[in-house]
Amino acid sequence: MEVLIVRDRRIDYDGSAIQSHWAYRNFGILGNSLVVFRGKCNVKVEEMIDIEDLRQKKEIKSDDMVHYIIEVFDFPNVLLASALQKLFIAKLCEVLADYGVKTARRGDDIYVNGKKLSISIATVSPVSIKMHIGINVEANGIPEGVEAVGLKEIGINDIEGFMEKTGKALVEEFNKVKRDSLKVRWAQ
Amino acid sequence: MEVLIVRDRRIDYDGSAIQSHWAYRNFGILGNSLVVFRGKCNVKVEEMIDIEDLRQKKEIKSDDMVHYIIEVFDFPNVLLASALQKLFIAKLCEVLADYGVKTARRGDDIYVNGKKLSISIATVSPVSIKMHIGINVEANGIPEGVEAVGLKEIGINDIEGFMEKTGKALVEEFNKVKRDSLKVRWAQ
Amino acid sequence: MEVLIVRDRRIDYDGSAIQSHWAYRNFGILGNSLVVFRGKCNVKVEEMIDIEDLRQKKEIKSDDMVHYIIEVFDFPNVLLASALQKLFIAKLCEVLADYGVKTARRGDDIYVNGKKLSISIATVSPVSIKMHIGINVEANGIPEGVEAVGLKEIGINDIEGFMEKTGKALVEEFNKVKRDSLKVRWAQ
Amino acid sequence: MEVLIVRDRRIDYDGSAIQSHWAYRNFGILGNSLVVFRGKCNVKVEEMIDIEDLRQKKEIKSDDMVHYIIEVFDFPNVLLASALQKLFIAKLCEVLADYGVKTARRGDDIYVNGKKLSISIATVSPVSIKMHIGINVEANGIPEGVEAVGLKEIGINDIEGFMEKTGKALVEEFNKVKRDSLKVRWAQ
Amino acid sequence: MEVLIVRDRRIDYDGSAIQSHWAYRNFGILGNSLVVFRGKCNVKVEEMIDIEDLRQKKEIKSDDMVHYIIEVFDFPNVLLASALQKLFIAKLCEVLADYGVKTARRGDDIYVNGKKLSISIATVSPVSIKMHIGINVEANGIPEGVEAVGLKEIGINDIEGFMEKTGKALVEEFNKVKRDSLKVRWAQ
Amino acid sequence: MEVLIVRDRRIDYDGSAIQSHWAYRNFGILGNSLVVFRGKCNVKVEEMIDIEDLRQKKEIKSDDMVHYIIEVFDFPNVLLASALQKLFIAKLCEVLADYGVKTARRGDDIYVNGKKLSISIATVSPVSIKMHIGINVEANGIPEGVEAVGLKEIGINDIEGFMEKTGKALVEEFNKVKRDSLKVRWAQ
Repeated sequence: MEVLIVRDRRIDYDGSAIQSHWAYRNFGILGNSLVVFRGKCNVKVEEMIDIEDLRQKKEIKSDDMVHYIIEVFDFPNVLLASALQKLFIAKLCEVLADYGVKTARRGDDIYVNGKKLSISIATVSPVSIKMHIGINVEANGIPEGVEAVGLKEIGINDIEGFMEKTGKALVEEFNKVKRDSLKVRWAQ
Repeated sequence: MEVLIVRDRRIDYDGSAIQSHWAYRNFGILGNSLVVFRGKCNVKVEEMIDIEDLRQKKEIKSDDMVHYIIEVFDFPNVLLASALQKLFIAKLCEVLADYGVKTARRGDDIYVNGKKLSISIATVSPVSIKMHIGINVEANGIPEGVEAVGLKEIGINDIEGFMEKTGKALVEEFNKVKRDSLKVRWAQ
Repeated sequence: MEVLIVRDRRIDYDGSAIQSHWAYRNFGILGNSLVVFRGKCNVKVEEMIDIEDLRQKKEIKSDDMVHYIIEVFDFPNVLLASALQKLFIAKLCEVLADYGVKTARRGDDIYVNGKKLSISIATVSPVSIKMHIGINVEANGIPEGVEAVGLKEIGINDIEGFMEKTGKALVEEFNKVKRDSLKVRWAQ
Repeated sequence: MEVLIVRDRRIDYDGSAIQSHWAYRNFGILGNSLVVFRGKCNVKVEEMIDIEDLRQKKEIKSDDMVHYIIEVFDFPNVLLASALQKLFIAKLCEVLADYGVKTARRGDDIYVNGKKLSISIATVSPVSIKMHIGINVEANGIPEGVEAVGLKEIGINDIEGFMEKTGKALVEEFNKVKRDSLKVRWAQ
Repeated sequence: MEVLIVRDRRIDYDGSAIQSHWAYRNFGILGNSLVVFRGKCNVKVEEMIDIEDLRQKKEIKSDDMVHYIIEVFDFPNVLLASALQKLFIAKLCEVLADYGVKTARRGDDIYVNGKKLSISIATVSPVSIKMHIGINVEANGIPEGVEAVGLKEIGINDIEGFMEKTGKALVEEFNKVKRDSLKVRWAQ
Repeated sequence: MEVLIVRDRRIDYDGSAIQSHWAYRNFGILGNSLVVFRGKCNVKVEEMIDIEDLRQKKEIKSDDMVHYIIEVFDFPNVLLASALQKLFIAKLCEVLADYGVKTARRGDDIYVNGKKLSISIATVSPVSIKMHIGINVEANGIPEGVEAVGLKEIGINDIEGFMEKTGKALVEEFNKVKRDSLKVRWAQ
């Protein structure tokens, strides 16, 4: 899995990056990829993936987030998408622990002191697994009724350093998953 | 996923439980399952799944372990097997954190203070994903050269309570993974 | 497989219910589902699934039908879609036999005394198998040139009872198919 | 699907015909196949596929049966195996109805007047779906405790004619399933 | 695989024939198919499949081409699509060698004396593998900057004969691939 | 795909290298691999993969061959196995053309002047595609009735150079197949 940390500019997330081959179309990265960037979040209704959100007409937005867009081509299966997503979230919690932040993971959500730090969705396109994770930099512009928290409020101010550290950690996690899958004989 | 906690007796693990339909053959549990039991561990060479272990002629043994045997029939793919395994290990670390134990996860291994608490393997049969996780109750009978630790040494003495708590946590995690995989529309 | 019998209102079928996650979007049913409802049938050209119908510019309509919308997420394969469809049609014929009605099944069509009682289509979305079965309540509003018959003409007047009985029968059939698939060891 | 009716000799069924490529190895039939033959049935324990039977140490035997061995290579999935099996059993019931015999299908079993006419199993090999259906010619040599019936007792004496008629019917059913799977566009 | 050589008329290729079921919709050919026809080539941007071309805003056009549209339903996987494509291109080179033409194959491109003879793309729809191969009849109307060559310039003037010969060769190649896949037992 | 050319010693091929993970077990190569080595060929009956050979009790042997053992983990499908095999054989013919040798490919066989230069088999294990290609160095020890030829008889005497050149060519071909599969958007 190749990783790209976009440092030189902001990219806003409106949900369209969830489409297949987004990393290849925009950055020329072929195959499994993780692109980490920073920008606003405001997901257009027609790009919403979570049908529960659609049914409840939830808004998905934040003024400033670190975004992770992941694509895995090995095969497009929703159960694998969902399992990888939870694993990546768990890994992010482990990195946050290295920062000294105590988190609670509830499925694909990260909470700090009962406040929501992240959003995430995982699904498939006809050719790949696609995933978005967003972590609030500051808890501004969040939908009403959601108690949120951001990286700055928990003491993480070097956002670019955080992007690099987490980007590297997620790719290592995926590569370990992949490598281990190749070294086991099958069982009867 | 159905869970069975075997409380009334010890079952030793020699590796043969990694075969498909073990839970159905032995306990009549049909479909996705987690069986938690306690007993010795001494994996026969012909049952070893990790080819790296086979190449290095490693021994896999412990005098007293909590064992988790997981089978998932959704589809037999090694990448999903490996991803679910890492997620389950991360979940066990989260439960251990609830006990007040600080752990370090390295892929599918759990360490406490640099000492190895667990072993694990994940693979496929032609019809299912199969996984074994073993957690030392006490660090006895471990292969030479491995610095190990057990639950009792980290202050967890109610082993049956631990079996129940972790068994329930793993099943909840899997059910969340599964449920989330069904509520997302596909992406273009 | 969860079943929902819509008793309190009519729902017309225009073909759009064949899209993935229709049951979840409209009724909050997660996972494999069967929704049984009653209403008109008039399939819009852009929703037609059978390319043979499209090529022959067939109309698909009826003034009053019992509709079955089935979604199976296990995996989206057209051969499984087509096999399940024929099995469900065969099951409906068996239920009709319990009512004392002699039917002839031709693939996915049910005939009574040479007259067409039903329509059906089965396909896949990128994440699921989708199926529609429609059974005429009365043979009105049928395309010209089709000799049709309805439930009332063959002596079945308790339509809600029929909806319940058949809904339950189809779900039981699917559950039996699923359960049996889990209790067999693989062959060499 | 190619069909072969073995008319010139008896072949006993001991369970080994459930292995992959049996039709190719023994009759040179490449690809999807149905072989119909007549002979004793006595399944060796090591060839038993149904783990429920194994757990209950059931015997599977009969002195004289019509056997159907089916192999489908499209893809080896247990749910498709189980669905096709039930469909084939339903088709056999429809053919029996043409003979004037009233049957009751319970999943993959055929009953006449509450007596068991047939046995069946469906599973996968790593490359194919495999299925066995056996229909008693006479109800002799049946395991104790099973109330059985045979074709002769229900008035079907031309066994070779029955083998031909049913063989043809099953192949037509499969071909219809396959053909229909190719003529439908995918749904959103 | 069924083959259709369209002799009686020209068909221009604008890229839309890459959609699933094109052969069934337009010619009533069910299942795996190869349609060979002759006509202009001018691929609309919205039909472009190769994202590399899209990124570079390449034009794909030629005044006169022999076109091959292939659809394979066995299963929709991009790696199989890409492997079959290269094999078909290699086969076309072998047929050209029979004509006495020395070619160089670079992946999915055919060159004669360093000039480009062909274009090709292979992908999947949600239900099938789809492929287009185009061979210049004359090197006219080619995008600027591409050094191209056509069949007539390399001495092949009986275009219809070439369409028949290559059509037959590609189908034989596919059928050999398929047949061989059915005659091998699986390995441990 | 990683390539290993075994230069320092001879390895005889008895068919057992067709089993999954052979390259990892013997050389520590994880994932997709091509191992090229030189040695005798004498395939044991119990390792024969081609059921046609088994049915005809053919011998598969040669005193001196260049062997290619390929394993692809992307997914274990016999059609992909068979397609890749034919493509690799076509590629070997292209390399031989670079040596100035005119070959005829018949499916997965290479002929020079009507004499057989190679043998090959492709199949799946439950976790991978496996392939063997063998090319005679000299046509000695060949089964009776087979007219064979070897590399030395067609003027290729630098066997190690041939092993390197072909090994590199096959890996490049596979990598091109893989890369191209990742750069195409899916079709409707």
